[in-house]
Amino acid sequence: MLQTISWIAVDWGTSNLRAWGIGADGQVVAEAASDQGMGKLDRAGFEPALLDLVGNWLPRDEKPLIIAGGMVGAGQGWVEVRYRQAPCRPVFSDVLGTPETRDPRLLVKVLAGIKQVAPDPDVMRGEETQIAGFLVENPTFEGTLCLPGTHTKWVRINASEIVHFKTFMTGELFSLLATQSVLRHSLDAAESDQAEFAGTVAAAANDASRFAERLFSIRAEGLVHGLAPARAKARLSGILIGTELAAAQGFWKDQNLVIVGNGAQSELYAEGLKALGPPLRRSDATHVTLAGLKSAYQHIARDI
Amino acid sequence: MLQTISWIAVDWGTSNLRAWGIGADGQVVAEAASDQGMGKLDRAGFEPALLDLVGNWLPRDEKPLIIAGGMVGAGQGWVEVRYRQAPCRPVFSDVLGTPETRDPRLLVKVLAGIKQVAPDPDVMRGEETQIAGFLVENPTFEGTLCLPGTHTKWVRINASEIVHFKTFMTGELFSLLATQSVLRHSLDAAESDQAEFAGTVAAAANDASRFAERLFSIRAEGLVHGLAPARAKARLSGILIGTELAAAQGFWKDQNLVIVGNGAQSELYAEGLKALGPPLRRSDATHVTLAGLKSAYQHIARDI
Repeated sequence: MLQTISWIAVDWGTSNLRAWGIGADGQVVAEAASDQGMGKLDRAGFEPALLDLVGNWLPRDEKPLIIAGGMVGAGQGWVEVRYRQAPCRPVFSDVLGTPETRDPRLLVKVLAGIKQVAPDPDVMRGEETQIAGFLVENPTFEGTLCLPGTHTKWVRINASEIVHFKTFMTGELFSLLATQSVLRHSLDAAESDQAEFAGTVAAAANDASRFAERLFSIRAEGLVHGLAPARAKARLSGILIGTELAAAQGFWKDQNLVIVGNGAQSELYAEGLKALGPPLRRSDATHVTLAGLKSAYQHIARDI
Repeated sequence: MLQTISWIAVDWGTSNLRAWGIGADGQVVAEAASDQGMGKLDRAGFEPALLDLVGNWLPRDEKPLIIAGGMVGAGQGWVEVRYRQAPCRPVFSDVLGTPETRDPRLLVKVLAGIKQVAPDPDVMRGEETQIAGFLVENPTFEGTLCLPGTHTKWVRINASEIVHFKTFMTGELFSLLATQSVLRHSLDAAESDQAEFAGTVAAAANDASRFAERLFSIRAEGLVHGLAPARAKARLSGILIGTELAAAQGFWKDQNLVIVGNGAQSELYAEGLKALGPPLRRSDATHVTLAGLKSAYQHIARDI
């Protein structure tokens, strides 16, 4: 261990596990990641997965607080943490989970997700931490945050609270259709055609009621007209994201809009929204995740 | 062998293989089926799969004609047969495939699929045989045939020809979402709730543009309000079929409509269409498949 670790921040999603060791001055002094996401672990697997990653950061005679957010608190996670209910601030210390641990050096607190009961039931686990981090740095923000992912969230923020949100399975649909459906034969390409995406996303958003008939046409156009795989891949992204943008219009039209996310998927949302007109800003997901875990730590450390 | 077999009819789809031995009088004298569909076989696997099923029907010194229709003629099938082009009659002898065989008793002809080039490219392999069988028994039919399946087809028929058709991936989407997406946790039920289906299919058809936001709400309502699995399952069917019915409206509205199909999925299409109003008839899929293969045989036997 190079420097004393004061506490540990953990982002534990379905697919990945990421941890930061935070020093007394609040700076990151260690960082590690693995693919041991919640989806790969049974209940007994969480403690070993965490120790694999941060075991050598732990001193012998102290228990640095470990704050974990994300799907680790789901019913299939390490410990089920009940939801806090929107409208509410994104993170707080009133609902926490404490998993049972065997290693005496471990003191883990798992953050609550957020549920929406009415009008449309919805849930999030993990995004609330990113939202908290965004609001630390943008405390007066009012408008919509779009958080692209396997399950993309659109979230209305007002007076530092999550007011209303909606989840779309677009990322998961893309993955299933691109790798496991008959369409996989047509879109085996590393690249995606940008111009094709822009055209398709606009068409799909402008007439989302035709969603169902658009999917198989990708395969048919491959067989009948030899549609290039890079265009087919862009076509599938464009259909799925365009259909989502149509249904999410209330969240982005005439709204102050920020996309929170990195990587190719967030680029596609930004491109798609550009085709439809609204101005938007971007925010880095890793940065706001860590800021959100720090904000949670400040609430929790006061109470423990 | 009990009775002399004059020729053999084969329906060879992605998932299943089915064969009928036909006597000199045109009656079925033997019948067999297996799960050796095209999707499970590489090119060398087709001949053994067929011999497993019909080998003991074959006399030593004759080659009864074997007529096979379906995905067996696709690019990933036994022999790639090019498409005939709509508008056209559903089956004819002008385009056939002849796979290479090792067993001297085999003489196999594979039927062509049908493609549509404009305005929307589309393809079918197998449904054309069912359509031919339906038209043998309904030679003056004009209107629309709906053939539910993994890839459901809507087909306009005029003057005994396939005029126009469109494919929807609804069955494949249901299967992927129900067994491999996050929704699988919410709809583990043998039964599906009929009233829930009827309400959902009508709502989804009446506002198909909201498709994307409906899917995750199944999961969220399970977590937040404890939605029962049988209702969740009906909800997913209703969303997918309702969205398809909206996009397929031009095919069924004010049209003479027949659903060609058996089983639970065809029941759902019939229920869904009932909720939307149009009268319809039903036709048995197995019966028309065999009738279509017989019609193909008559064309082909004349030419060989």
